[in-house]
Amino acid sequence: MPNNRIAVQDPLSKVNPFRVMTVMARARHLESQGRQIVHMEVGEPDFSSAQPIIDAGKRALDDGLTKYTEAIGLAELRECLSVHYRENYNVKVGADRILITPGASGGLSLLANLLVRDGVLLSDPAYPCVRNFIHMMSAQPQLIPVGIKQNFQPTLEQLDKYCTDKTSGLWLASPSNPTGTILERSELKAACDWAAARKKHLLVDEIYHGLHYVDDLPSVLELDQSAFVVNSFSKYFGMTGWRLGWIVVPQEHVEMATVLAQNMYISASSISQYAALAAFTPEAKHIFDERREAFRLRKDFLAGALKSMGFSLSENIQGAFYVYANISKFSDDCEKFCHEMLEKHGVALTPGTDFGDFESKSHVRIAFTTDMESLELGVERLQNALL
Amino acid sequence: MPNNRIAVQDPLSKVNPFRVMTVMARARHLESQGRQIVHMEVGEPDFSSAQPIIDAGKRALDDGLTKYTEAIGLAELRECLSVHYRENYNVKVGADRILITPGASGGLSLLANLLVRDGVLLSDPAYPCVRNFIHMMSAQPQLIPVGIKQNFQPTLEQLDKYCTDKTSGLWLASPSNPTGTILERSELKAACDWAAARKKHLLVDEIYHGLHYVDDLPSVLELDQSAFVVNSFSKYFGMTGWRLGWIVVPQEHVEMATVLAQNMYISASSISQYAALAAFTPEAKHIFDERREAFRLRKDFLAGALKSMGFSLSENIQGAFYVYANISKFSDDCEKFCHEMLEKHGVALTPGTDFGDFESKSHVRIAFTTDMESLELGVERLQNALL
Repeated sequence: MPNNRIAVQDPLSKVNPFRVMTVMARARHLESQGRQIVHMEVGEPDFSSAQPIIDAGKRALDDGLTKYTEAIGLAELRECLSVHYRENYNVKVGADRILITPGASGGLSLLANLLVRDGVLLSDPAYPCVRNFIHMMSAQPQLIPVGIKQNFQPTLEQLDKYCTDKTSGLWLASPSNPTGTILERSELKAACDWAAARKKHLLVDEIYHGLHYVDDLPSVLELDQSAFVVNSFSKYFGMTGWRLGWIVVPQEHVEMATVLAQNMYISASSISQYAALAAFTPEAKHIFDERREAFRLRKDFLAGALKSMGFSLSENIQGAFYVYANISKFSDDCEKFCHEMLEKHGVALTPGTDFGDFESKSHVRIAFTTDMESLELGVERLQNALL
Repeated sequence: MPNNRIAVQDPLSKVNPFRVMTVMARARHLESQGRQIVHMEVGEPDFSSAQPIIDAGKRALDDGLTKYTEAIGLAELRECLSVHYRENYNVKVGADRILITPGASGGLSLLANLLVRDGVLLSDPAYPCVRNFIHMMSAQPQLIPVGIKQNFQPTLEQLDKYCTDKTSGLWLASPSNPTGTILERSELKAACDWAAARKKHLLVDEIYHGLHYVDDLPSVLELDQSAFVVNSFSKYFGMTGWRLGWIVVPQEHVEMATVLAQNMYISASSISQYAALAAFTPEAKHIFDERREAFRLRKDFLAGALKSMGFSLSENIQGAFYVYANISKFSDDCEKFCHEMLEKHGVALTPGTDFGDFESKSHVRIAFTTDMESLELGVERLQNALL
C-alpha cells in the first residue's frame, strides 16, 4: 500500500527516537556475538524489585486482584502517598489530589494533555520524552540552555528572557535526568513565585526523589500547592517493569485529570498497585535506603575516576544515577565518541544529543546503574581508551 | 491559586467523562449502605484471570523479571501473536509488525498520535474513548449514525456521504462496543476497498475478537495488510487489570510506532507480558473457550428475557458481552431511566448517551458480565419495574 495514505504529521516529524535505544540494541548485538559490554547507558537500576514488593505482587495474584481499579488508582495506595508526603516532606497532600498513573510516562502524557498549549519552558538538556510530549501536543518546547556554571538548572533571568506570550507553563526536573542536579529550596521557591506572578502553570518532575545525595531536597509541594508534580515507583522504589507512577494536581484540576485518566488508560495495573503498597513498609524502606547508599558509593567512585581522566563534570552530583560529563578534551562529537567507546572498547554510554541541543555534542551521560565491579571495569576500559 | 493560570483547552472541553463511571460509583455507594445491586453496567468479565496466567505471573516475579522490556514488547510474546494469527485466522502477520501496548488504551492512544489529523470517520454509537482520543488530537470525529436496521455498522453509502476532504481515515469496531455487532467478511472487505480507493487509513478495533458467537469473524488483516489493528488481552484473554494489549501496523509504520512507544510508555508491564505468554497454552485456551460458552448462554438468556419485556434489540448479538437495547417503550430519557433502575430497583445499567448522540437517549447498554444467578435477579427486578 502506498505511504501517501497517511499524511505526514508535522508534530511527529519533530518526535525523535532515543539514541540510547540504538546504543542498547547495538550493545545487545555485540553481546550476542560474544563480546562483554559494560552497560553505562541504562537509565534503570540494576537491582530487582525488593522482595516485599515481589511478595505483595504474588499475594495479589493469589487473591485474584486482576481487575481494573478506579481510574485514579487504589484509595489505599493514594493514602500511602499522602502519608509519604507528610512523613518525608512534612507537607499535607490530600489523597484526593493524587492520581496513580501507568509509569511516570502515563503521568507526563496526562499532564501534557491537561496543561500544554502553545509553548512550554523547558531546560536544555532535559529528559527527551518531555520535549516529545510537547511536540505531540503540537506545542513548542521553549528550550532554556543550561550549563554547568548554573548547575544545569534555569535561572530567573533566563525564565524572564525565554518567556513569551505563547508560554503556558514551566516544566522543571529536580533531580534532573541527565545532569543529576537539583534545584535548591530557595531556587525552587523563586521559580514558584515567578510562575505565580506570570500566571504560568508549574510542573516539577520529582521522579528521582529519594535517590538524592544532599541533605535537603524539597518537593515543590512544600512551597506551592498549585504546582503539578510527576513522580514514579521506578527509581527509588525500584519498580521499573511494573509501570507505576503518580501525579499530584491542584484540587481544581482533579476532575479533568480523572476524566483524562479514564480515557487514556482506564487504570494502572492492579497487580502493580497492590504490590506497591508494600513499598511503604519498614522492610522495603530499609532495602531502598541501602540501595541509595550503594548508588552514593558508585557515584563517588565514578565521579572521581572520570575527573581524574579529564572529563569535566559537576562538583556535586546531587541526585539520580547519572553523570553528565563534558568530553571536550577527547572529542567534539559525542555520537562518534559513544560509537567508538562501544565498538572498540566495549563501554556503552549515552550521547548528550539525546537530551537537547545546547552543548550536547560535547557531553555524554554515564549511568552508575551497574555494580561496582562493572563500573571499575568500565573505568579501566575508558582509561585504556583515553589516556 | 486562580484557575486562570491554566487556559481553557478547546480539545479538552470536548472530552467527556464516562457516565458509566458515575453509575458504578453510585452503585458502590448504595452497596456501602447495605443495598444489593445487580451490576449490568460493567465492561469487564467477572472471571478472574485464568490460573495458568496467574501462575506465569508469579513465576515472572520469582524470576525477578521486573525490568523494562523493549518498547515494542517481548519478542516471544509478539511471536505468540504471530502464531495466533496464523492458527486462528490463517493469515501471516510477522511478529515485527506487532507492538505490545499497555492495554488497548495504550494502543489506541499511540495510533491516534500516529494517524489522526483533521477528521476521522467513526460510527455513532461507538466506544467513547475513541471519540475522545480524536478530540485530544484536536481533530474531528466524523460521526456516522448507525441504527439497528444496518446492524449498527456503517454502510458504504454512508462512508461516501460522511467522507470529506478533511477525512484522514476510517475507524471501525468489530465486534462493536456497545452494540455487540460485527462486520461480515464481505462488508469488511468492502470497507477495505473503500479506504484504499480513497487513500484513507483504516483502523479496526478487534478488542472483542474471541468473544464472538458467529462462525466467521474475520480479522481485517486477512483482507488488507495495510490496515491498522488494535486488540487487547483484557476481554477474551481475561486480563483487564494487567493492562496489556497489542497493535498491528503496516511495515512502513513500524519505525515511527516504535518511537512513539518509547516516548509514550517505555514498555508495557514486564510481569503482564511474561504472564501473557501462558495465554497461548492449551490449558488457558480451554478455560477461555469455556468462558466464551458461559457468555453465550448468558447472552441467549438475557436477550430473550429483554425481548419478552419489550426492549427492542438486535436479532443476533454477534460478539462482545453487551446488549444495546432500545427502551422507547418505557422512556425517552436513558439517563433518567438508568437512574431510576439503579435507585429504585437496584439494577445498574449504562445510558446510551455514553456512546454517542444518535438515538442514544432511547438506548441503554446492558452487560452480561455477571453470573447467571445475578442476571436472573436483574431480569426479575427489571420485570417488576417495567411490567
